[in-house]
Amino acid sequence: MSEYINRQWRLAARPVGNFKDTDFTWREEPVPALTDGQILVRNIYLSLDPTNRIWAAQDSYLPAVPLGDVMRGVAIGVVEASRNAAFPVGTFAQGLLGWQLYYVGDGKGLTPIPKIPGQSLSLYHGVLGAIGLTAYFGLLDIGRPKEGETLVVSAAAGAVGSLVGQIGKIKGCRVVGIAGGPEKCRWIVEDLGFDAAIDYKNEPVGAGLARHCPAGIDVYFDNVGGDILDAALARMNNFGRVVACGAISQYVADRPPTGPANFLLVVSKRLRIEGFIVLDYLPRAQEAIPQLLGWVAEGRLKYRLDVVEGLESAPQAVRKLFDGSNRGKLIVKVSDEP
Amino acid sequence: MSEYINRQWRLAARPVGNFKDTDFTWREEPVPALTDGQILVRNIYLSLDPTNRIWAAQDSYLPAVPLGDVMRGVAIGVVEASRNAAFPVGTFAQGLLGWQLYYVGDGKGLTPIPKIPGQSLSLYHGVLGAIGLTAYFGLLDIGRPKEGETLVVSAAAGAVGSLVGQIGKIKGCRVVGIAGGPEKCRWIVEDLGFDAAIDYKNEPVGAGLARHCPAGIDVYFDNVGGDILDAALARMNNFGRVVACGAISQYVADRPPTGPANFLLVVSKRLRIEGFIVLDYLPRAQEAIPQLLGWVAEGRLKYRLDVVEGLESAPQAVRKLFDGSNRGKLIVKVSDEP
Repeated sequence: MSEYINRQWRLAARPVGNFKDTDFTWREEPVPALTDGQILVRNIYLSLDPTNRIWAAQDSYLPAVPLGDVMRGVAIGVVEASRNAAFPVGTFAQGLLGWQLYYVGDGKGLTPIPKIPGQSLSLYHGVLGAIGLTAYFGLLDIGRPKEGETLVVSAAAGAVGSLVGQIGKIKGCRVVGIAGGPEKCRWIVEDLGFDAAIDYKNEPVGAGLARHCPAGIDVYFDNVGGDILDAALARMNNFGRVVACGAISQYVADRPPTGPANFLLVVSKRLRIEGFIVLDYLPRAQEAIPQLLGWVAEGRLKYRLDVVEGLESAPQAVRKLFDGSNRGKLIVKVSDEP
Repeated sequence: MSEYINRQWRLAARPVGNFKDTDFTWREEPVPALTDGQILVRNIYLSLDPTNRIWAAQDSYLPAVPLGDVMRGVAIGVVEASRNAAFPVGTFAQGLLGWQLYYVGDGKGLTPIPKIPGQSLSLYHGVLGAIGLTAYFGLLDIGRPKEGETLVVSAAAGAVGSLVGQIGKIKGCRVVGIAGGPEKCRWIVEDLGFDAAIDYKNEPVGAGLARHCPAGIDVYFDNVGGDILDAALARMNNFGRVVACGAISQYVADRPPTGPANFLLVVSKRLRIEGFIVLDYLPRAQEAIPQLLGWVAEGRLKYRLDVVEGLESAPQAVRKLFDGSNRGKLIVKVSDEP
């Protein structure tokens, strides 16, 4: 036993549709004393991501979170107690620390991160985190856009999509974003420099793509799947590339997911549809990070955080990802930065 | 006017489901006299291919055949009259000569072919034709199998599939074919050397794949789309590749085509699905042809032709492609080799 009282969200049920409060159970309990090799990390910022829904629902690229376990989540924290020389007290660390105040474990899989002077640690959930690497490697390594090509990105005001579009502009593409509602559309065009935005809540996406992509689509960065993927496929140019990053429209559907009806176009248009998971790119992170930091410093890459206060709010907050109401990268502030 | 009387099948209606006799009209008419630059080619062997259904039904990678025009088809013929120095009388030529006895035109897009001593000209509809190049480039350039990997091919007793599997064996893969009926399954295993066959008419494909692909699937060469594609996706390994060659199950469906329900696996398994059209590889044909001829000579690459006699039979014959009753590469013998 120790002086630390943990606060945790444990997974209580497999979600059906969007997350519900009853999918989680709140638990407060003393943190067990550390054994040799263990560390105790106080979480500061917890990242909420669409993939949380996949982890809670089923086995995928990671096994499903067992019912009754602490909900899996990427967080940034500070080591407050340590019996592990690799993680001295005061070290900042990032990794699968979970939806809890305190992580206790051997630190395996956690990455020590340097504090960047004058910057919040939340930077590591921003461009330096999964969203930055997802946008960078997904677009450049999988999508391989060439100068002058047309790039379309869905969930364009989202954490990943907003970065994808800006990197596309830096690389000389015509960039069209698909987002829901006038505020998001205004933001990506006026503040982020996209060439055009399609508000899928106010016009058929196919009509918008026809208007804004007169030369067709060369790269489609897909965060949503479903009907929007179909509309994009219909406008793809020969030898176009579809970066399969996610399919948020399908995660919470109450029907079994369906594939794109326009799948036959893959052959006739010689399309390449390729999926990726950012975890595979972590060993190459150093290729991306100096570039991303440079673009941020130059003001060419902007992002916004949607910070929710308090671990208690996590189950309500995570639902914003699936109803379109979050604005930027969604994180929960669990405790104060030191 | 000339002494030649043409015999033609013209497209009369857009096919719905499989081709019907009434989709074509038979026409006999004198061939017009040649003008400067024109040639007259007597067709010898007409190739029937699944893509004929696409050409008849809708615009795709080529515009749809206009109603009333001669049905588009690849054929091999001999020049019988010429006012074009590039095609002297007696030249053999291959290309889009159409479903007719005589082609008259400027020869654009036609390829002169040398007669290989002791071989039938039909070789150019076999390994030296589209099916050989489709199998070679689709498997090696798009699928990129590595030694020891598991390759699955559908329509495995078909013209392309049977070559794909044999090339996979030459490259050191474990090869599993999916075909309909015991005769086809026996042929690909006993005569062609596939490691295993799944008879989709007699067992669920998913169960067969589970049994015959204990290490999962690394490359799936898809000729059929639909449910079989879904079953393959479910067994793909991480970083697997799907060669999207065709989707014959969808061409004649009486419902709108549906995409693969397991499409979400593209992200979690980091799959690459890539389409291609053999026409794009014609400029690289010389990379493949010596290799293919060598394998044929060594007895490592076998194929069979299903030769139907007489142009009159073409509308009945083409239906065999879609009901699974053809055995090997389907061609129509239009007239005799000189």
